[in-house]
Amino acid sequence: MTGSENEGYEMKEECGIFGVFGHEDASKLSYLGLYALQHRGQESAGIAASAGGRFRILKGMGLVSEVFDARNLSGLAGSSAIGHVRYSTTGSSDIKNAQPILLDTSKGKVAIAHNGNLVNAKELHDELKASGSIFQSTADSEIIIHLLSRSKSGNILEALVEALGQVKGAYSLVILTMDSLIAARDPNGFRPLCIGKLDGAYVAASETCALDLTQANYVRDVEPGEIVVIDKSGLKSVKPFPPDMGRSFCIFELIYFARPDSSIAGRSVHLVRKGFGKKLAMEHPVKADIVISIPDSGNSAALGYSEESGIPFEYGMIRNHYIGRTFIEPSQKIRDLNVKIKLNPIKETLRGKSIVVVDDSIVRGTTSKQRISALREAGAKEIHMRISSPPIIDSCFFGIDTPKREKLIASHKSVEEIRKFIGADSLGYLSVEGMLGSAGLPKDEFCTACFTRDYPIKFGHKVSKLSIEKGRG
Amino acid sequence: MTGSENEGYEMKEECGIFGVFGHEDASKLSYLGLYALQHRGQESAGIAASAGGRFRILKGMGLVSEVFDARNLSGLAGSSAIGHVRYSTTGSSDIKNAQPILLDTSKGKVAIAHNGNLVNAKELHDELKASGSIFQSTADSEIIIHLLSRSKSGNILEALVEALGQVKGAYSLVILTMDSLIAARDPNGFRPLCIGKLDGAYVAASETCALDLTQANYVRDVEPGEIVVIDKSGLKSVKPFPPDMGRSFCIFELIYFARPDSSIAGRSVHLVRKGFGKKLAMEHPVKADIVISIPDSGNSAALGYSEESGIPFEYGMIRNHYIGRTFIEPSQKIRDLNVKIKLNPIKETLRGKSIVVVDDSIVRGTTSKQRISALREAGAKEIHMRISSPPIIDSCFFGIDTPKREKLIASHKSVEEIRKFIGADSLGYLSVEGMLGSAGLPKDEFCTACFTRDYPIKFGHKVSKLSIEKGRG
Amino acid sequence: MTGSENEGYEMKEECGIFGVFGHEDASKLSYLGLYALQHRGQESAGIAASAGGRFRILKGMGLVSEVFDARNLSGLAGSSAIGHVRYSTTGSSDIKNAQPILLDTSKGKVAIAHNGNLVNAKELHDELKASGSIFQSTADSEIIIHLLSRSKSGNILEALVEALGQVKGAYSLVILTMDSLIAARDPNGFRPLCIGKLDGAYVAASETCALDLTQANYVRDVEPGEIVVIDKSGLKSVKPFPPDMGRSFCIFELIYFARPDSSIAGRSVHLVRKGFGKKLAMEHPVKADIVISIPDSGNSAALGYSEESGIPFEYGMIRNHYIGRTFIEPSQKIRDLNVKIKLNPIKETLRGKSIVVVDDSIVRGTTSKQRISALREAGAKEIHMRISSPPIIDSCFFGIDTPKREKLIASHKSVEEIRKFIGADSLGYLSVEGMLGSAGLPKDEFCTACFTRDYPIKFGHKVSKLSIEKGRG
Amino acid sequence: MTGSENEGYEMKEECGIFGVFGHEDASKLSYLGLYALQHRGQESAGIAASAGGRFRILKGMGLVSEVFDARNLSGLAGSSAIGHVRYSTTGSSDIKNAQPILLDTSKGKVAIAHNGNLVNAKELHDELKASGSIFQSTADSEIIIHLLSRSKSGNILEALVEALGQVKGAYSLVILTMDSLIAARDPNGFRPLCIGKLDGAYVAASETCALDLTQANYVRDVEPGEIVVIDKSGLKSVKPFPPDMGRSFCIFELIYFARPDSSIAGRSVHLVRKGFGKKLAMEHPVKADIVISIPDSGNSAALGYSEESGIPFEYGMIRNHYIGRTFIEPSQKIRDLNVKIKLNPIKETLRGKSIVVVDDSIVRGTTSKQRISALREAGAKEIHMRISSPPIIDSCFFGIDTPKREKLIASHKSVEEIRKFIGADSLGYLSVEGMLGSAGLPKDEFCTACFTRDYPIKFGHKVSKLSIEKGRG
Repeated sequence: MTGSENEGYEMKEECGIFGVFGHEDASKLSYLGLYALQHRGQESAGIAASAGGRFRILKGMGLVSEVFDARNLSGLAGSSAIGHVRYSTTGSSDIKNAQPILLDTSKGKVAIAHNGNLVNAKELHDELKASGSIFQSTADSEIIIHLLSRSKSGNILEALVEALGQVKGAYSLVILTMDSLIAARDPNGFRPLCIGKLDGAYVAASETCALDLTQANYVRDVEPGEIVVIDKSGLKSVKPFPPDMGRSFCIFELIYFARPDSSIAGRSVHLVRKGFGKKLAMEHPVKADIVISIPDSGNSAALGYSEESGIPFEYGMIRNHYIGRTFIEPSQKIRDLNVKIKLNPIKETLRGKSIVVVDDSIVRGTTSKQRISALREAGAKEIHMRISSPPIIDSCFFGIDTPKREKLIASHKSVEEIRKFIGADSLGYLSVEGMLGSAGLPKDEFCTACFTRDYPIKFGHKVSKLSIEKGRG
Repeated sequence: MTGSENEGYEMKEECGIFGVFGHEDASKLSYLGLYALQHRGQESAGIAASAGGRFRILKGMGLVSEVFDARNLSGLAGSSAIGHVRYSTTGSSDIKNAQPILLDTSKGKVAIAHNGNLVNAKELHDELKASGSIFQSTADSEIIIHLLSRSKSGNILEALVEALGQVKGAYSLVILTMDSLIAARDPNGFRPLCIGKLDGAYVAASETCALDLTQANYVRDVEPGEIVVIDKSGLKSVKPFPPDMGRSFCIFELIYFARPDSSIAGRSVHLVRKGFGKKLAMEHPVKADIVISIPDSGNSAALGYSEESGIPFEYGMIRNHYIGRTFIEPSQKIRDLNVKIKLNPIKETLRGKSIVVVDDSIVRGTTSKQRISALREAGAKEIHMRISSPPIIDSCFFGIDTPKREKLIASHKSVEEIRKFIGADSLGYLSVEGMLGSAGLPKDEFCTACFTRDYPIKFGHKVSKLSIEKGRG
Repeated sequence: MTGSENEGYEMKEECGIFGVFGHEDASKLSYLGLYALQHRGQESAGIAASAGGRFRILKGMGLVSEVFDARNLSGLAGSSAIGHVRYSTTGSSDIKNAQPILLDTSKGKVAIAHNGNLVNAKELHDELKASGSIFQSTADSEIIIHLLSRSKSGNILEALVEALGQVKGAYSLVILTMDSLIAARDPNGFRPLCIGKLDGAYVAASETCALDLTQANYVRDVEPGEIVVIDKSGLKSVKPFPPDMGRSFCIFELIYFARPDSSIAGRSVHLVRKGFGKKLAMEHPVKADIVISIPDSGNSAALGYSEESGIPFEYGMIRNHYIGRTFIEPSQKIRDLNVKIKLNPIKETLRGKSIVVVDDSIVRGTTSKQRISALREAGAKEIHMRISSPPIIDSCFFGIDTPKREKLIASHKSVEEIRKFIGADSLGYLSVEGMLGSAGLPKDEFCTACFTRDYPIKFGHKVSKLSIEKGRG
Repeated sequence: MTGSENEGYEMKEECGIFGVFGHEDASKLSYLGLYALQHRGQESAGIAASAGGRFRILKGMGLVSEVFDARNLSGLAGSSAIGHVRYSTTGSSDIKNAQPILLDTSKGKVAIAHNGNLVNAKELHDELKASGSIFQSTADSEIIIHLLSRSKSGNILEALVEALGQVKGAYSLVILTMDSLIAARDPNGFRPLCIGKLDGAYVAASETCALDLTQANYVRDVEPGEIVVIDKSGLKSVKPFPPDMGRSFCIFELIYFARPDSSIAGRSVHLVRKGFGKKLAMEHPVKADIVISIPDSGNSAALGYSEESGIPFEYGMIRNHYIGRTFIEPSQKIRDLNVKIKLNPIKETLRGKSIVVVDDSIVRGTTSKQRISALREAGAKEIHMRISSPPIIDSCFFGIDTPKREKLIASHKSVEEIRKFIGADSLGYLSVEGMLGSAGLPKDEFCTACFTRDYPIKFGHKVSKLSIEKGRG
C-alpha cells in the first residue's frame, strides 16, 4: 500500500485511560485518575458515567482541570465511569477525536476509551464501510465498536472477543456497558493497564500513579491478552487469545512516558531509569566536575549516572513551572527562546565546569542542540551528553506518536555526526543490551522496535506519523 | 407502541437549512443564509464545506453570530457548503445534536442537514441497530445516512432514492457530497425548500429571505418528492416517488414560522397573514377603538384586521430588542416578569380604550392570559382577542415542536372556556375554511392536522413532544 | 482653545441610569431597570450596591444580560443600589470607562452613575490636576467626585451642591452613599430622570419604562436643578440653583432616544412621535399608495403620517431580530450588506407602488441612501422620504454622541441636495416650529441646538465628537 | 491603633516588576520578563507601554500566558514599557488591585508598578483623603502617585523624591513617564531590583532570571535608597536619602521566593540555598539512608545537606506538573488530597528507609504534617525533617504575605512540639547565625524579622495578614 492511499488517515496518539466500577464518587475518582495521568495527554479530556443504564458524557479540549469543574462533574452521575486524556500534537486537534466515545449498538449503549494504535485500522475501516457501516471519526475505538455491534452473539463479552480477534496492534481499553466495566489489553501488552481496589470498588488505570491519587490499592496488572470484566458479581478474567504470542511491552514507557512514581509490572519506573543511568555511566564513562539533568525527563538517570560514576549531581538548569501556553514568536533578537522559556541555566554552577548532561533521548536533535548552546553560553567548559536510551532509528506504530523516520536524527546520522550536530564534546547512548540488562528486563518481553526495527507485529502499510518533538519539550 | 417504550427518544425540532454549490465564498454565503434563517433555530448553528474532496465542518451552540467569526469561517474553505440552524427547546440541548452531520460512508464522505421529522425513525433505528449499525445520535439525518450507506448501489443518487424510499415523514434536506449538492423534499412537501441562483452558482434555502440576504435570485421551489442534484454539469431533477401522494405543506409556516418577508410557493407570507387578518375581521367583527398587534407575530394579521374593519391600527405594546438570555427568577414581588420583559404596554394609547388584540395563535394560554392582564393593568377598558388561526387541538409530528396534546388549551377547552381563562372580553379564532379560503389556498395541498387531526401520514406510535411555548415568546 | 489641545480627551455618550433605596432586592431591581434602559447604552453595564456601609460593585463590557447572572447579582448584597448602561461607540471602548464609579472620599465612600456631558470638564480637570488631584479616567463623574471631596463642608449634600455649582452642562446623576440615594438633574434639565415607588422603596430611573418593568409606580420627574435625597427618613428635595436658568430638555430624546413606551414630563413618547408624523403629513403632503416606516425608529411617526394623510400604513421592511454582533466584511459581491442584514424589504407590498417612507432623522445620509436603493430594487415605483424632525445641522455637546459637524449631511447640503444624494423622489423634513407645536411643546423648554445652533449654555471650546451613525443603524 | 480600625484595609503581596526603555519590542520583552517572574505572582498580570506620550495598558486576572496573546501585545505599542505580576492569595482578588496603575497627574501621565509594602500607608491614605484626595484602591502605588502629584515641584524626579520622603516601608518601583523609565528602591532595600542592558536598551527587573530570558546582560542592582532615571540621555542615578539607614534585604527572598537561577547581590540563589543545606547538615546531623527534597522548594538545600553529610540524595516525591486550578473538594474518603495532588511519593525508594527530608520552611505546619504522613504511608521507616531556615515566629510587614502571627506554628510551639505535631522522628531548623554565616551574609544587611522580631523599621500599627500557606504549597 502506498503512502498516498493512506492520506488523510489520522494519527493515533499516546493516551491515558481510567475506569471505576461500584463507587458512589465514580466521576470524581475518574477526574482524579485523569489528573494523575495528565502527562499522557494534554489535548483533550473526557469522562463518561453510567447511572442505572443512563449514560452521561462530557468531553472538552484542554487539561483535565480546564474541562471539568465541580458543577459539570456532579452532572456525571452514576457509580461507574471511564475517562480518557489525549496527547496534544498539532493544529489538527479536534473535539471530534476526544474520547471516551459513547455509541448505541446492537448490544446496548457502550462507552469506550482507548490507548494504543491498531495497525490494521485502515483495512478494517474500509471493509466495514464497504459493507455499509458509517464513520464519524477515524478513531480505532469506533472500529472496535463497529465490530462488536456486528457480532451475531447477543453476549457483549463474546462480541468483544470476536471484535478483538479481528484487530491487530496495540490497545489498552476500558469499556463501560450498562452493567459492567471491561478492561482489556492486546496479546502483546504494548501499553500498560493496571487494576486497583478502593472501598470495595474496582479501578482500572494506565499507571499506578492514578491509583495513588485515588487512594486505591494496587491489585495487579491486566495481563497481555486478558479481558477483565467487572460487574456486581465481582471480577472475572477471560484470556481468549493463544498464549504463544510473544509479549512486547513498550520500553519507551519506562524510558520516558510513564511517571517516575508509577510502577509497571512491579518495577519502579524511577528505579529502572536510575539503573539506566548507572549502566550509562559504565558504558560511557567520562572525567567531569558535575552531572546535571535535563529536567525533569533526565532526573532519574542523571542521579544513577552520578551514583555510579562518583561525579557529584548538581542542578544545572531550572524549569519554569508556569509554562502555560506561550505564543510569542521568537524574533531574531530573541534567540533560542523556546528552550530558554522552559529551562534556564544556573550560570554559577556551570561556569568553567566540565559537565555531564543526562537526558532520556534525542529525537530530532534540534532541542538538544539549543540546550547545549545555552549551557555553553552560561559558561560550561566541556559538555558530555549522555542519553539513557539507544539511538531512535525508526517510527513507532503501536501508540507513540514519533516523527517520520527521516526526521529522526539517528535514522541517518552516526553518533559522531549527531555529536557534531548538537555541539557536544562527547556523546554516549545507552546500548539496547545495556538498557534491558541494567534493569533485569527480559529482552523477549519488550518492544524495542524504534531502536532496532524489530517490530513485534508485521503489517502491510506505513502509517505516517506526526512529530513527537513538539509535544514533549 | 406505548409512551414508555419511546422514552429517551429525543424530539426533532423546527430548523433552517442552506446550501451553495460553485461559489468561491461558499461558507460566507452559508453564514449569511443561516443568519437570515436564524428565526428557524437559535440553539445551534453549523456549516460544512467541501474543497476538492476535503471536508471541513464547524458547529457550535448559540446564534450564528456567536458560533462563527471571520477567522473560523475562512477556515471552511471550498466552493460548496451546507449549513443548519436548530431550534432551541430545553436543557437537553447538546452540541451532539447540532447539524450538519459529516459521515464517512460506502459512497464516500457526505455531510447532511435536515429540517423535518421522520415518523418511522424509531423503527428504522431499531432495525439498523439490530443488524449491527452503531449510532452516535438520535438524529433523523443519521438514519438516512445509514440507509444510504447500506444501499448496494454504487451511485449515490440511487442510494439516496433507495434510502428515502424507506423513510416516512417530513424532510427537507441538503446533502453535500465530494462533487455535488443535493436538495430533497419529502413527497408531501411538509417543509419549505427553494432554489436560487447567484453569479452562476446555485443556492438552496429553507426560505426566500435567505436568498435576499445572499443576493441570490429566486429560481423556484424544490417540489414535493423532488430530488435536485447540482454539480459541475448544472442542475438535474429526479422525481422517484409516485405522483399520487397528496401534497401537505405545513400551514403553520404561513401562520407563524416563516419570516413575513419570505415568499412560499409564490405567495408573500406577509400578505397571506394580512389576508388571515382580514378574514378574521369578517368572521369575528367587533366594535372597538383600536386594533393592536402582539408584536411581531401578530403584526401582519393585525394590519389586515384594521384595514377590513376600519378600526384604526395602533401600537399598544413595545418589544424590548435586547432580550438576550435573561435568567432572573421572578420572585413573588415581580409578577408576570417573563411577559413584561419582552413586551411593555403603552399606557397612553390603551387607557380607557376598547381594543382588538391580534395574535397568530394560542398554545397553552398562559402567555395570552399574562398579556391581557398587562393590557388591563395599563388601562384598557375592553379587550377583544382575535387569533389569526384556528384552535390548536393536537400535536405536530412533522417537524414542529408542539407541547403534548393535553398541554394545548384548545384540546380540552371550548372557545368560551379559553376566553374566560385568558380573561378577554371576547375571543375569536379564524376558521379552518376561512384561513385557507382567505388566501386562496387549496385545502388539499396543506397539512392542517394540528387544527383538524387530519394527519396526512398514518403512523403507529405517538412521539412525545416538548413545549413550543417557551421557545417562541 | 484649539482642537489639538483637546486631543485624547474622550467623548461622553448617551447613557441610562437607575437607583433604588430601601428594597431587599435592590440589585435585582437595578438589573431589571437597566434591562429596560438597555436601548440607552449597550457597551457596558454596571451595578454598585451598598449593605450596611459596605459597597460592592460589578461592571462589565456588553449587554446587561451578558454582564450579570443570578450568581454574581446575588453577590451584590444590600438594600440600596445604583446602575448604569453606557452607549457603544467605537474601538476605544474600555472597561475603564464603565460606570458606576466607586471612590473613597473625604465624605466617605460614594458610587456615582451619570448621564450627560459637562461642557467645562476639560477646564475643571486641568485645574484639579494642577492642584494635585490624580485621574484614572476622563469621566465627568470623576470630576464631580473630586469637587465633592475637596469641599470643606463635612455634609455630603452641601459638598455636592458646592461641586455641582462649579460644573456646567448636562447631567442626570444617581449617587449612592453609605446611607442615602441622591438623584440630581442639571438646572437646564437636558436629560430625563424620574422617580417611582415600589413596596415603600424609592426608585430613580432615566425613563419610565424602567419603572414599568420593576413594577414601580411613577411618582414624578426630578425637576431641572433639583437634588433629591432619599434616606431612611424619606425623600427630601433641595433646589440650590437660581430658578431663572431656562429649561432646555433634549428634544432628541422625544424624537429618537427614549423608548416609545416611556413618558417624559407626562407626555407619551409614542404619542408625541405620532403627532410629529401627523404634522409632517400636513407640512409635506404627497400622493402615494402606502406609508411605510423604517422600523422601529420611524414606527410611531409613520402611523401618524398615515392617519393624517389617509394613505394606508403598510409593512415595507422586516427587521432581523437576531442581529447580534455580525462581523462579515462585505465584499464587492455582497453589496449594501449592512443595511440588508438589518432590514429586508417585502417585495410584494412594494412592487409598483408609490410609497411614503418615514424615518426619525438623517445623520450622514449614507444609511438612508442604501435603504432607498434597497426599496427601489424591491420594486418601489416612487419613494417619498419624510423625516419626523428638522435637518441636523450641528453637533450636540450635552450628552448625545453626534458625528462632527462636517459629517452631518444637512450641515452643508440643502434639502434638495440631500434628496438627490439619498436618491428619493421627494424629501420632506418636519420644521422646528411644526415639531414643537405639534405636541404642544413650549419652545423655551427644549434644547433644539442640533437643528438651530441655539445652544442653551455658552462654552469656550469645541468638543470633538464620534459618529452616532454606526451605533444607531 | 486597634485592629478593628484597620478592617477592610487590604493586604499587600509579594509581586514581580519589570521595565524597559528604548527598545522597539518593549511590550514583548515585558511579557517575557513577567513570564520569568511568574513565580512572584500568579493572580494578575499587566503591562503599560508608552509610545510618543500615548499610554496603553492591559491588565487581567491570571497567568501572564493567559492574560496576553500576540494580538493584544501588539496593541501595546511603544519603545518603553513596565509590567507587573501579583501574588495570588484569596477570594478577595480583584482586577481592581492589578498593576501597573496608570494615572493622569499634575506631572503628566504616569504608570507605576510596585513590589513591597508601606507601613504608613493607612496614615497617608487618611491624611490625603481628609484633604480632598479620592481613592480608587488601597494600593500603595496610588498613595505614592497622590504624593507625587501634590508636590509643588514641576520636576517629576523632585516630586518623586518628595513623595518617597514621606513613605515608610518596603518598595521596589518601576515608573513609566512620558519620556523616561524610573526604577527606585527603598533605603532599606527590602525587595530586589536589578538593571540589565540589551541592544542598547535598559531593562529593570525584580530578579536576574528575567534578564536571562530577555537576553539582557546584568549590569548591577539598583542600590537601596537609589532612584535610577533612564531616558534618551542614558542612565542617571540619584541617592536622596541619608546613607546611615541600615540595609535590610529580605532573607526570605534567598530562602524561598527568588528563583534558584537568579542572582541577588552577586550571589547565586541556588548556591546560597545549597550552603544553607550544608550548614543544616552540620548543625543537625543524623544517621539515615537517603536525603530527599520537598520539590522544588527544598531542592538546593537538600543537595547541600547530601553533599555535606555524605548521605545519598534521592528522589522521594514526584511533582505533578499539570496542577492547574483544581477545585475538587476532598470528601472524607479522599484524605490529604491537597498534598497528594501536588506530590506523590515513590514507594520503592522510601520503603523501609530512614530518610532526611529537606524543606525550606514550615509556616502553619499542616502541610508538613500531611507530607510526612504520606511518606510514612509510602513505607518510610524513619523521617528526619530538616528545615533550611529558622522557625518563623512573627509576620512580615515588608511585602511578604504571611499569616497572622498566631497561625504561625513556631510562634507558640517549641521545636519539640512542632516535631510531635508534624509527626517527624526528628526535626532540625537552621539557626539564624548558621543561615547568615553559611553564605557569608553580613548580619546587618538583612531583614530577619520573621525569625527574630527585630523589625528594621518601627511602625505604629499592626497590619493584618492573609495566609501564605495556601498560595505556596
